[in-house]
Amino acid sequence: MLPIEVKKMIVSVVGHENFDDSKAGCLVYSYDATPQFQAMPHAVVSPRDTAEIASIVKICSKYKIPLVPRGSGTNLCAGTCPTHGGIVMLFKHMNKILEIDEENLTVTVQPGVITQDLILAVEEKNLFYPPDPSSMKISTIGGNINENSGGLRGLKYGVTRDYVMALEIILPNGDIIRTGGKLAKDVAGYDLTRLFVGSEGTLGIISEATLKLIPMPETKQTMLALYQDLEAAAKSVSKIIAHKIIPATLEFLDQPTLEAVEDFAKVGLPTNVKAVLLIEQDGPPDLVEKHISLIAEICRQNEAVSVQIAQNEVEANALMTARRSALSALARLKPTTILEDATVPRSEIANMVRAINEIAEKYNVNICTFGHAGDGNLHPTCPTDSRNQEEIERV
Amino acid sequence: MLPIEVKKMIVSVVGHENFDDSKAGCLVYSYDATPQFQAMPHAVVSPRDTAEIASIVKICSKYKIPLVPRGSGTNLCAGTCPTHGGIVMLFKHMNKILEIDEENLTVTVQPGVITQDLILAVEEKNLFYPPDPSSMKISTIGGNINENSGGLRGLKYGVTRDYVMALEIILPNGDIIRTGGKLAKDVAGYDLTRLFVGSEGTLGIISEATLKLIPMPETKQTMLALYQDLEAAAKSVSKIIAHKIIPATLEFLDQPTLEAVEDFAKVGLPTNVKAVLLIEQDGPPDLVEKHISLIAEICRQNEAVSVQIAQNEVEANALMTARRSALSALARLKPTTILEDATVPRSEIANMVRAINEIAEKYNVNICTFGHAGDGNLHPTCPTDSRNQEEIERV
Ligand SMILES: Cc1cc2nc3c(=O)[nH]c(=O)nc-3n(C[C@H](O)[C@H](O)[C@H](O)COP(=O)(O)OP(=O)(O)OC[C@H]3O[C@@H](n4cnc5c(N)ncnc54)[C@H](O)[C@@H]3O)c2cc1C
Ligand SMILES: Cc1cc2nc3c(=O)[nH]c(=O)nc-3n(C[C@H](O)[C@H](O)[C@H](O)COP(=O)(O)OP(=O)(O)OC[C@H]3O[C@@H](n4cnc5c(N)ncnc54)[C@H](O)[C@@H]3O)c2cc1C
Repeated sequence: MLPIEVKKMIVSVVGHENFDDSKAGCLVYSYDATPQFQAMPHAVVSPRDTAEIASIVKICSKYKIPLVPRGSGTNLCAGTCPTHGGIVMLFKHMNKILEIDEENLTVTVQPGVITQDLILAVEEKNLFYPPDPSSMKISTIGGNINENSGGLRGLKYGVTRDYVMALEIILPNGDIIRTGGKLAKDVAGYDLTRLFVGSEGTLGIISEATLKLIPMPETKQTMLALYQDLEAAAKSVSKIIAHKIIPATLEFLDQPTLEAVEDFAKVGLPTNVKAVLLIEQDGPPDLVEKHISLIAEICRQNEAVSVQIAQNEVEANALMTARRSALSALARLKPTTILEDATVPRSEIANMVRAINEIAEKYNVNICTFGHAGDGNLHPTCPTDSRNQEEIERV
Repeated sequence: MLPIEVKKMIVSVVGHENFDDSKAGCLVYSYDATPQFQAMPHAVVSPRDTAEIASIVKICSKYKIPLVPRGSGTNLCAGTCPTHGGIVMLFKHMNKILEIDEENLTVTVQPGVITQDLILAVEEKNLFYPPDPSSMKISTIGGNINENSGGLRGLKYGVTRDYVMALEIILPNGDIIRTGGKLAKDVAGYDLTRLFVGSEGTLGIISEATLKLIPMPETKQTMLALYQDLEAAAKSVSKIIAHKIIPATLEFLDQPTLEAVEDFAKVGLPTNVKAVLLIEQDGPPDLVEKHISLIAEICRQNEAVSVQIAQNEVEANALMTARRSALSALARLKPTTILEDATVPRSEIANMVRAINEIAEKYNVNICTFGHAGDGNLHPTCPTDSRNQEEIERV
């Protein structure tokens, strides 16, 4: 329980309706998407603006009460699990898109904005916000910034870090600072903006962010390359990059993942092959055409048994959405889903796939592998059951 | 003078030939490209490898001797001027390109590599290192990283920060750390790599860097748009960006700058107009064609009196080289060159140009303006004479 005077002070800042220390209320925020972690907070607080955040931070700082900022809790590193109790801070009231600046190509948002809402809002102005973590339907920009999230378009367009231009931050002592700005070139002083990106809420609370936008690519094409050999698929990835083509998306899914995803999403994914590469290129029509046919050729030279090109946008989007649902689909297989998030240099992706299979065999566990192959970033995932001590040990 | 035991220790690390405390030797490193700053160091030291740097740092740390790492001394903020004496450290022995990794699209270099040498070396493999400060013929990668340098291609391709993937750093206590890596996606822990970028040598000494490369654009085109009205030129810049075209280069030069540059470089720049925009687009041929003609149209709609397209690569390179020589050309006009480096949001560039002219008139000074208009980054420059107290006051 929070000291009574602390509770009083916080309530006087945010109002009764934005303070919850009921058991039910706290239970909801006692865990996040990370398996095998749970801990009860003492209270859940929902500030309405920067000044309220600063007041709460000051109180917590004075009374040494842990403070855990939380977006949608989809992180996979227990970053929003209040392992030391204290207060969970929500941004449900701070979810506004404050400005889309078409001249400077920026968007300014509050931390609680849902990633996909932002992407769609700027799309309406023919602008593009590339970072698209698979969780984008539900994840918040505050969470994305603090995890430096990447996504399917990361290979060509980079990660969240590459789009954060300015931040408003409440420091642990309650001071409010602003870093960066709308300037395309802003190099005076230490780069605090990027120090906060990926800091998992440990350096301060982000109350506002200005993000860089780019012009919407004119067109895109999506294809699937099918393989009966895992390493051949992985090798194609290195070969594509070595040909100096950077596709917008270059994803890998192995057979167990394909099966789980197809069962979940029903978009007609092949389930009788060992692996597929899901590839998308965007840009001006001629260039996309050229790249896609070159990539198809490289895949065939590297033992792809078939190469299929999406016939229209609906089909293309279905494939991308299916890929984004991979983790959710695998999570349905068994009660516990242990996902790894390992990155190797792109040239080592074939070795990584080989090693994963050796490990799976050695420990007799079921590993489903998928991920951002073009970035060298794969997710070997174990559907398992934490109640089975012996198996968890091996996992 | 350095304490005699310190001199002995340093000489035992780097050898006599790499230690210089002669008056002549020190004088050479008593200033850099920044006007109106000069101070004598106590010695100049040239380590041959990371271990030698670490030993020197430890000695300096123990004896509290200021240590100033220095690339080519082209910075404009007195960052390599030893204002508190101490030791200037040179990287002339550490100027090797260690690896060009074509599979992972990276290059690994020592800090003393000259920017242009790096650009040309990777070009031979059809790879592209975009950051091109105008000083690139002489500046070092160590200096570029510590200044987070930008250049003519910054608008489309970003600044040095966007290309630094990994660093080897000697901390002030002599510890050697490595940050980042070749991974396209590397988000665990705080982003120390980018904290060091732009830190002007104040956080540590960089002894090795791995930089990101991108595929070489297939082709490029270069054009000049001429204006009789400064603000019309500035307005064209905003309009081009608002049309969602991001040219590789979008530079502004006013008439006094044009005159100085033409006098210096003799490439046939127009000197009878109030301003020009120097514009370059690169990419696949069709797209470049399309963008260049659209940009030409926008310029004409915004009162460009003429639009000229470079007929071949020689002509295009001459224009870019001429632009890069702007500061050197202006520096010939008067004994002292006071250059400002101010950035505004791109949409404010016309206001900035107007304000500069008002200021020039108000204080009766001669201001020549040029710079990265597309980034909102202009260099209002005063050719003056520091011996003329009254004028310097107004400047
Ligand atoms: C099915 C699924 C798919 C996923 N796919 C991807 C993927 O493709 N790529 C990827 O990178 N990640 C992925 N993730 C991980 C996760 O979704 C992302 O990291 C996402 O950015 C987290 O957003 P969130 O709003 O849920 O943040 P949360 O999980 O709530 O918080 C994340 C971190 O940010 C901190 N934080 C949140 N808001 C603030 C704030 N305003 N100020 C300071 N700190 C704050 C929290 O304390 C925490 O440390 C996936 C997760 C799931 C469950
Ligand atoms: C004519 C001219 C044109 C210019 N054009 C541009 C331009 O277009 N864009 C731009 O951004 N800048 C420009 N500059 C500024 C300058 O050239 C750049 O900042 C360049 O990056 C400096 O490189 P350098 O090797 O000369 O570094 P130096 O001037 O020697 O050093 C720069 C800073 O880096 C530190 N440093 C150097 N090496 C190391 C190391 N190994 N470890 C730690 N710290 C180190 C120094 O202590 C110093 O603080 C220009 C300068 C001139 C004179």
